[in-house]
This record gives sequence, C-alpha cells and structure tokens, in this order.
Amino acid sequence: MKPNNFYLLFFLFIFLMLSGCNHTSEQTDVVDHLPSWKEGFSKDAIITFVNKVTDENNPNFVPSAERIATFDNDGTLWSEQPAYFQLFFAIDRVKALAPEHPEWKTKQPFKAVLENDMKALAASGEHGLIELVMATHAGMTTEEFEQIVKAWLTTAKHPRFNRPFTDLVYQPMLELLAYLRANEFKTFIVSGGGIEFMRPWVEKVYGIPPEQVVGSVIKTKFELHDGKPVLMRLPELDFIDDKDGKPVGIHKFIGRRPIAAFGNSDGDLQMLQWTEAGKGKRLMVYIHHTDAEREWAYDRKSHIGRLDKGLDEANEKGWTVVDMKQDWKVIYPFDLKK
Amino acid sequence: MKPNNFYLLFFLFIFLMLSGCNHTSEQTDVVDHLPSWKEGFSKDAIITFVNKVTDENNPNFVPSAERIATFDNDGTLWSEQPAYFQLFFAIDRVKALAPEHPEWKTKQPFKAVLENDMKALAASGEHGLIELVMATHAGMTTEEFEQIVKAWLTTAKHPRFNRPFTDLVYQPMLELLAYLRANEFKTFIVSGGGIEFMRPWVEKVYGIPPEQVVGSVIKTKFELHDGKPVLMRLPELDFIDDKDGKPVGIHKFIGRRPIAAFGNSDGDLQMLQWTEAGKGKRLMVYIHHTDAEREWAYDRKSHIGRLDKGLDEANEKGWTVVDMKQDWKVIYPFDLKK
Repeated sequence: MKPNNFYLLFFLFIFLMLSGCNHTSEQTDVVDHLPSWKEGFSKDAIITFVNKVTDENNPNFVPSAERIATFDNDGTLWSEQPAYFQLFFAIDRVKALAPEHPEWKTKQPFKAVLENDMKALAASGEHGLIELVMATHAGMTTEEFEQIVKAWLTTAKHPRFNRPFTDLVYQPMLELLAYLRANEFKTFIVSGGGIEFMRPWVEKVYGIPPEQVVGSVIKTKFELHDGKPVLMRLPELDFIDDKDGKPVGIHKFIGRRPIAAFGNSDGDLQMLQWTEAGKGKRLMVYIHHTDAEREWAYDRKSHIGRLDKGLDEANEKGWTVVDMKQDWKVIYPFDLKK
Repeated sequence: MKPNNFYLLFFLFIFLMLSGCNHTSEQTDVVDHLPSWKEGFSKDAIITFVNKVTDENNPNFVPSAERIATFDNDGTLWSEQPAYFQLFFAIDRVKALAPEHPEWKTKQPFKAVLENDMKALAASGEHGLIELVMATHAGMTTEEFEQIVKAWLTTAKHPRFNRPFTDLVYQPMLELLAYLRANEFKTFIVSGGGIEFMRPWVEKVYGIPPEQVVGSVIKTKFELHDGKPVLMRLPELDFIDDKDGKPVGIHKFIGRRPIAAFGNSDGDLQMLQWTEAGKGKRLMVYIHHTDAEREWAYDRKSHIGRLDKGLDEANEKGWTVVDMKQDWKVIYPFDLKK
C-alpha cells in the first residue's frame, strides 16, 4: 500500500469517526421520522412546526428547556372504545373483589357490573362510576396498587382485538413522541385518567417517565406500618384532570405552558386553548377518529371522547385536525407486522 | 515519513477521537466536583453513594431514569433565617397593597405587618400566616403573580446581608446539584414553600426547571378573560407540601421514590423516611445549621426549621448529617469572591 492510500484511508476513517460523534443533524432531512404518517397537511404542519422552533436562526426558535409537549392519553395515544380502558380495569377488579363484598350482589353500580349489565352501569352515571373507582382504586398502599395494575395488564384482553390493552397504542403517535424527544422536547401525558393507572406502564410503552404524567388523583395518606412508611390510597378524589382541570393540572404539575398539545375530545379543548394563548409559535392538534374499520369512527355525538365544540374551534382557528383514516398508514404497532 | 509512522499517527488520532466522544468517565476521579466541601464523612458519604449507584458493575447500580434526588429548599438550598424568605415577600406585598385596603390598619395580622410588630405577627399563629398568604398570593392571574415574584426578587434585600435573597443560596449545595446532574440524576425541589414562589427563579439559580419543583399549592381556576384563557389564583389552599405531605407530594408530582433526599428540619423527616424505605442503596442527608458566624446556628429549639426528632433518627439510623461549620469551606457564592 502506498502512502497516498494511507492518507485516503486515514481521512476516510476520521470522517467516519466525526460522523459517529455528531450524526443527528445530518440525517434530519433524509430520514422519515414519521413513517406511519401519510404525506399531507397534518404531517406537514407537525414537521414545519418542529423545524421552526428548533432552528436557532428562525424567529420562532424556542430553547429546548421550554419545548413542552402535552398529550391526552385516552383516544390520543391509545384507543378508548368501547369504553375507557380504565373502566375495564375497574370492572375486573369488582369481579375479583366480589367474594369479599357479598353486599355488592344487590347494590348498584356493583350489581350491574357483576351481572354484566352495561346499560344499568351506564344509568348509574358519573356518581356510579366514581363509586366504582373508589371501591377498586383505594384501600391499599400505592405499591400494592401499582402491582395490581401491572398484573392486570399482563392478563386482560381488549374485547374486540383480543389483545392486551397496551397493544392498542397508536403507532403514528409513538413515532411522533420519539420524533419530538429527538428534537429535545419533553413529552408529558395530561389525561383525565388516573395518574397511578398510567404510571406503571407508560414509560415502557410510550417512553414517558412517571414524573411526566399528569392525571386525575385520589388522596393518599402517609402512615407507618410496623415502622415501615407507606402511602395509603384513600377513597377520596383529590383532583380531576379534565376539561378546565387540564390547564390547572398543567400549571400545577409542570409549571410551564406547553408549546404543543395533542388531544381528541372536548375534554382537551381548554388544554389546547391554554397552549395557543402563549407567546410565539404553537401547535394545537386534534386526533379525529374517522376510521370505523381499523379503529372507531366517532365525534360530535359520542358519549366517550365527544369532539364537538373542539372540532368547531379547531376549524375556526386553523388548528391541525388529524384524520386517522386518511393520515395514518397504520393504526397499531401490530398492524406493521401484517 | 515511513508507513510505520503513519500507523502510529493513525492509531493515536483514532484514540483521541474516541476519547473525545466519551471523555466524562475518565475525568471523574481527577476533578473535585465538590470543591466547597471539606474532606470528611459527609463528602465521602455523598461521593461513595454516587459512585456506587452509577457503576454498572456495582450491585447497587441504579439506572439513570430512577436516579431521583429531592431537596428541601428553605434551610437546605438557601437560608431561612430570621424568617422564611417567602414571609418577607408577603410582608412587602401587604405594605404595597395597603393603600387599597384601609381596613388592614385595624385588622390583624395586617396591622402587625404595617406596624412592623413582629411579636404580634407571630402571635397571630398559623391562621394569621395563612391569611397573610391568601391576601398577597391570590386574586391575580398566574402570569401576574410570576411577574410580581420576579420584580420583588430584583429589589428586596435580606436584612442581615443587605443582598438579594437569591444570593443566600448555599455554594456547596449548588455544587452538589450540578454533581448529581452530571451523574444523570434528576434533581427535584420538594419544599413546604409556595410552588409558584419558587418556579420563577429556581431554574436560573439552581438549574432546576419548573417541572421539577414540588411545593405547597393554592387552587387556581381556568377562566376566559375577553376570550383569552387565564388561570386565576384563588385564596384557597390546595396542598401543603410539608411533613407527612412531602411523601404525598413526591408520589403525586414525581410518581417515583427518590434514591437520595436532602433536608434540614423535622419537616423533612417523612421525606427521608420514605426515601430510605425503598429497595437498594439510599442516601439520606440532613444539613445541620451549626455556623452562627457565617450563617445561623439552630436545631432542636428553633421555631423556624426545627431539627429535633429528625436529628435523633438520623443519628440512630446512620444518616449523613452535614455540619455546616465543619464541612463547608464557604457558605454563599459571594464568599468565594472574598
């Protein structure tokens, strides 16, 4: 080998080393970070926004510390039909605990659950649902509850897909979460669901750590059990993280206004309004459930995840409305393997 | 140059490139990351703990996602004498707002504040203090309150040192925060102080972002003012993040148990107990105020920051008790310039 070849090899190697140290910016324009998103308005709006706020030379640049993105969970990151998945959990818990509660056989809403009478359960209304949650989500330590949730997720199956509930997360949203984090966003969940129902699994499934989860909360009490400190879950609501509660929860838990927010229902409207009202470039996105075949189609008249006022406001204000049927190549990660 | 020399140069260069990519671990043992800490038990305990939990080959290794460290604020990260600094803020706000409240001239605890009668103010007790906080910390939007706090910090001076209150942070603790973060810890404040009194300045002063601040909270309400969404601060307590409330706050806001916790008073005892009760290696640290000359000396009998039961428990259990006078070369950053 002649010295000239050594030079060539040498510089090639150095180039490869340098690329290895600092390869992300080079790839941004080449790699499609959102491969499950079809080309179109929605994908464009997201990428354009991210490019603007991450470009130091752009007037809309936002320092990475302020790149907060908030995501509703039910209907935005995973499905919420035919009922919120947390309700399936509560129902399974009522059945598991029923032997210890003979009185439930004659007492609503427990009777309805034990008899699989969904109509009677629905008739028990919000009050009935809260009673169900209190009976199944309280009365144990926080560590015990975490184990109960984890155990349930390994065995419970969604009635339509006959798969674990955590399989029903949206592949395009997983890509979006990863894309935002690669652009130094902090991704938060801001959900009406129970904060401790989500924390045991969202880190593994979404890559979102427990400290970036905001949700509805029941009270806990510090106690010493045989000298060992525990937190007991009390049957008392502390905070409902829905509708007006979402900006309140964002301010309380995060303390910084999001620059991007993602929801799918009227319950997310105030979060999107709060996000929009900040200074500078903002991204407000509604996921619109339009795909009855691959997922579900529902909006203005649905009892679960109703999107009515929010859809009007999104159209008026030019927010991004993702059409699941049109914009998403696949819905669930398991669709990729088909 | 002979080919052999090319080889040598080539490998030297590759070695340098590789070192450039991954140089942090090499430096750990050489640089003193805690230069304001004197050599001794306290510094040893901290460094030994960090080395163990960050070493993949150590049985006490903790993945970085779980490296949560929580810090009390008043008396742990900055001084708290002759009164919690937030009380100085409340007093200054009462004086500023007094022209709009002629009734305060005759009404306690406001009368005491306006007459600089600290004895009468103390006599008004916890109830009086809460009344003072409600009158000065509520009734405006969250954004307005943030501006009020920021403006106050630029003008208010500590009575003993005649310096801005944010000058009275502890240099050794700033080094400790940075050292932990360099070792991929997430550092959180868990303080009895008002969460929104801290968030406007702790990022700049401690490098702790707002979303990693847990504190006492008053209720807020989402409203539309001329179509613009705001959060109004209500004169109603939502959560007191002190004593039993600290583990509750940690669980609610962070959702993950700390592996290291730092406090200075009996108000931090439950946080330290909660930290210790987790599995694996843990670090519990009390800052003991022993330096009347450079700072203040107080513990078992102090009304502010009392450390009595906590000191006994720390001694019993072998927690780390930092002796400010012995263990810290300097107290405040401005001491470095002397």
